[in-house]
Amino acid sequence: MNELANRVLADCQVIAGMTEEPSRITRRFLTTPVHAVHAYLRARMEALGMQVRVDALGNLRGRWQPAKATEKALLLGSHIDTVPDAGAYDGVLGVALALAWIELAQDLSVNFPMEVVAFSEEEGVRFSVPFLGSRAVAGSFDPALLERKDESGKTLASAIRSFGLAPELWPEAAIEPAKYMAFVEIHMEQGPVLEAEDLPLSAVSAIVGQGRLTLCFTGQANHAGTTPMALRHDALGAAAEWIVQVESLAQRTEALVATVGRILVDPNAGNVVPGSVTASLDLRHADDSVRGACLKTLLDSAAHAAALRKVQLQVEVQMDQPAVAMDSAWTARIVAAMEATGFPARTMTSGAGHDAMILAQALPTTMLFLRTPSGISHHPTETVRAQDVEAALAVGRAFLLGLHGEIQRQGSLDSRRLLA
Amino acid sequence: MNELANRVLADCQVIAGMTEEPSRITRRFLTTPVHAVHAYLRARMEALGMQVRVDALGNLRGRWQPAKATEKALLLGSHIDTVPDAGAYDGVLGVALALAWIELAQDLSVNFPMEVVAFSEEEGVRFSVPFLGSRAVAGSFDPALLERKDESGKTLASAIRSFGLAPELWPEAAIEPAKYMAFVEIHMEQGPVLEAEDLPLSAVSAIVGQGRLTLCFTGQANHAGTTPMALRHDALGAAAEWIVQVESLAQRTEALVATVGRILVDPNAGNVVPGSVTASLDLRHADDSVRGACLKTLLDSAAHAAALRKVQLQVEVQMDQPAVAMDSAWTARIVAAMEATGFPARTMTSGAGHDAMILAQALPTTMLFLRTPSGISHHPTETVRAQDVEAALAVGRAFLLGLHGEIQRQGSLDSRRLLA
Repeated sequence: MNELANRVLADCQVIAGMTEEPSRITRRFLTTPVHAVHAYLRARMEALGMQVRVDALGNLRGRWQPAKATEKALLLGSHIDTVPDAGAYDGVLGVALALAWIELAQDLSVNFPMEVVAFSEEEGVRFSVPFLGSRAVAGSFDPALLERKDESGKTLASAIRSFGLAPELWPEAAIEPAKYMAFVEIHMEQGPVLEAEDLPLSAVSAIVGQGRLTLCFTGQANHAGTTPMALRHDALGAAAEWIVQVESLAQRTEALVATVGRILVDPNAGNVVPGSVTASLDLRHADDSVRGACLKTLLDSAAHAAALRKVQLQVEVQMDQPAVAMDSAWTARIVAAMEATGFPARTMTSGAGHDAMILAQALPTTMLFLRTPSGISHHPTETVRAQDVEAALAVGRAFLLGLHGEIQRQGSLDSRRLLA
Repeated sequence: MNELANRVLADCQVIAGMTEEPSRITRRFLTTPVHAVHAYLRARMEALGMQVRVDALGNLRGRWQPAKATEKALLLGSHIDTVPDAGAYDGVLGVALALAWIELAQDLSVNFPMEVVAFSEEEGVRFSVPFLGSRAVAGSFDPALLERKDESGKTLASAIRSFGLAPELWPEAAIEPAKYMAFVEIHMEQGPVLEAEDLPLSAVSAIVGQGRLTLCFTGQANHAGTTPMALRHDALGAAAEWIVQVESLAQRTEALVATVGRILVDPNAGNVVPGSVTASLDLRHADDSVRGACLKTLLDSAAHAAALRKVQLQVEVQMDQPAVAMDSAWTARIVAAMEATGFPARTMTSGAGHDAMILAQALPTTMLFLRTPSGISHHPTETVRAQDVEAALAVGRAFLLGLHGEIQRQGSLDSRRLLA
């Protein structure tokens, strides 16, 4: 393993030890171990000659300014918070790789400034709202969120103050988009696709749109022994028929994922015909029109399965989040760097949300995914292969070199041409 | 409403007030309110000239001995315990109607002795084993049960002693079968069949056999957004496909009831592909060979649905209880009495277990069902129609009269002929 890849993995391991719980990795937004992470990353950044600050939302931000540079910076970053009982790489790997890309850029003497953001909050664990850090950076932070409370009843504003920051300064966290070329987030795939294809990396073309719904099937609880089949209104029978159709539609619709992950049965007793069933639906696709059409089909299926059994159906939409396309020109630059390094020109959609989704509102944005062994993330056994980290460094070097050349060939920074 | 029907309903109402919980009807085996029930029923029985005793299992037993009677008695009865938050009629209605039948028999001056048993335990709530009272009466009580503990850790022997009885006398609770003609249990249907057919009553031809199983589908929990359909091992998809097949097989198999009433999903989160599903199966039919064949079909279906998704399947059989046929000659006597009274000759199977199932091991046994409004039982809204109670009294009168005549025509009690 090369020295830089080694340092990336060491960064992840060191930060994994900064946790709220002794034997597990749990590092929620603005909790005590985040101070340790900031101190560690600040030292790493300062050793790279970066200027470091922490903004009002707790994002740690470092800037490297080359001697003779163009005006517009390249923004890199990912998040440093985790889910409870997490692995060491989701989020942190992207921050550590961004620092390594700074080192590569310094070796290459690139002609543009670079910034790294360690986003304070992405997982949505503490305040049940994700992307608090990246919203502030992208300029889409809603200050009403400052009054939102965590489980202990503490407001976001108060949590920020307890951490030693000034919540009222949230507007200063926002970037000036005109001063940046683009945002690039490096992240683990968190799925099994690259492993199944034996690929170390992929560019990302879009973050899928997502619908989350709750369907309530209300039938009639009855004695399992004395109620003939013809007189039943079995809520679970209706739900089961629908669940099979959810799975079947997703299997035959290219790139759709549809999941019924949660189901609550009442009264949930072996000798009672189910009276009601509450089931979740999670539906994701990179094309919102495909997702919309599939949702309509599935709601029709549910209504039909319910009507067959004289079961009532109620549908509640919890989330309807549009797909976010990555910037095609910047994605093409990542793909070109992959090809230049000898890797296949693979692009994929992200089935999970990322800070990149928020930054895309403000800047041309793209992502680079690393293979996730066994597709496991949000779990202590989450890992990453050293050879894939090396691949991400090789691709980063080619990407930075390509960008440097592109800017040099243009004579000056012409954002219109760069972003075309 | 006639006076006797009125008294039956009044008995049920009075006994409903004898409960462990102030605002609900809950009367578990050998709890304090059972003393009140015994005192009430004892007074009712003694007023009818019956000799009363309580056996070692807490069954209250009254015997009416006419002046010039044959040797063999007719045994009637049902249970006085309830499920938690019960209705007023499940069990108690059969005891109250049995007492009313004694009054009818006395009016008719029938020529045979009669006994009424108020069984102490049928629901299986306190010790998780049903039929403790009727097992003792039928002579099939296993004394190992005396060491069984309730939720508070109290043994059955200790509960019996606390109630003021001597557990070691359990063998004396058993009847001598040679001294009885038959056992007849009157009970509410606890299902919707008679209401759907607009009938007040039915004779019972059999108590269905019952299988209870647990099926565990073990797949792989995965991220709902990042795991493509083709790489999933969705335990709920497998379970849902199987549940639809359970329902479908039961719908096309005459008189089969099959229920998946309980389902536990892990991790049961909307954005996680279900990793494992534990599902119950309750399968009932009056013909054990039909039930066995259907069970085999359903286990094959489950294995197929699991294999399609590379999901593991484990099956555990919790209960495999054979069907119990009611005595055909005694069922025919009930049917004849129904026809003599002007009701259709309806017989049905019982989908629920009853004390009659246990007594059938010792005596020719049959049952009479009363319509259950809306099919609701084990619930505070459980009720019974006064006109149906009147019907049960009219049929009882015809039945007792017919039996009296049959015995008279034979000159003496010839059990072989009677039971032929």
